[in-house]
Amino acid sequence: MLFKRFKGTKKPGGLFYYINKNFKTEVNLKLKSLGKHLLVEFYGCNKKKLNDLKFIEESMIAAAEEAKSTIVQDVFHKFSPHGISGVVVIAESHLAIHTWPEYGYAAVDLFTCGEKTDPWAAFYYLSEKFEAKIKTTLELKRGTMELPQPKQKIEEKIKAYT
Amino acid sequence: MLFKRFKGTKKPGGLFYYINKNFKTEVNLKLKSLGKHLLVEFYGCNKKKLNDLKFIEESMIAAAEEAKSTIVQDVFHKFSPHGISGVVVIAESHLAIHTWPEYGYAAVDLFTCGEKTDPWAAFYYLSEKFEAKIKTTLELKRGTMELPQPKQKIEEKIKAYT
Repeated sequence: MLFKRFKGTKKPGGLFYYINKNFKTEVNLKLKSLGKHLLVEFYGCNKKKLNDLKFIEESMIAAAEEAKSTIVQDVFHKFSPHGISGVVVIAESHLAIHTWPEYGYAAVDLFTCGEKTDPWAAFYYLSEKFEAKIKTTLELKRGTMELPQPKQKIEEKIKAYT
Repeated sequence: MLFKRFKGTKKPGGLFYYINKNFKTEVNLKLKSLGKHLLVEFYGCNKKKLNDLKFIEESMIAAAEEAKSTIVQDVFHKFSPHGISGVVVIAESHLAIHTWPEYGYAAVDLFTCGEKTDPWAAFYYLSEKFEAKIKTTLELKRGTMELPQPKQKIEEKIKAYT
């Protein structure tokens, strides 16, 4: 038998917090990441649109909504002679864009955390909006560490062992 | 001999634009990237500092200055019960931060373009400020494409061939 059952301390919440050191690790902690970061390169976009401040701002805000994120604040700026930079700070991290209309290129970052938000929805939305001919993506996990699992999952694990 | 010399057209600027197709590629275009993006994970930071809005904002602005970038605008927001998100939009792209004080972790993005700005200077500055025990970095090139070289470099190349 792997574990000595029910020899742990009972937490105020009524959940068996640990049974032995191994079991604690098994049920209570899991290597997870806090955030998901999508790095996107859009090439061959509509150059006029990439230089339209209002269009870019509206697209990025709509993309944040597509991703089911909660918008906190946004900042957009147009450079001379061309190019736009902008960030939408969301409760789940941020969406950022930098455009080089002269090259039909935009660098986009879609950084979200939590399981409800989906950066890929924002990616597909923007890809269509900018009429990007070539798109490359890189998905990274940010903040990987041993994190406590939700209470429900721990209870399920305990059930499975008892 | 690699190239037939001086058989190209003379551009209005007085520079030999191309001599043959290969030479044009050689002297006029180069695979370069528009931006440099440093993705940073700071673990084991000072938890109190990671939850101090004023401290985080000041540190990020100072980091932008360390990187020799030009600040356009900044947005910082404190979440309840803890955690700070913030972005400094710079003329050369952006610096972003998201902190999880409860884990002593901060995700930092240092995205710059141009050759005068150095994201690594911002990295070293922040690393010290946050008292980060573990730091991982990933440097990415953003917007890689064939870009024209500065005129001076083309002239140097032509000289080298003639």
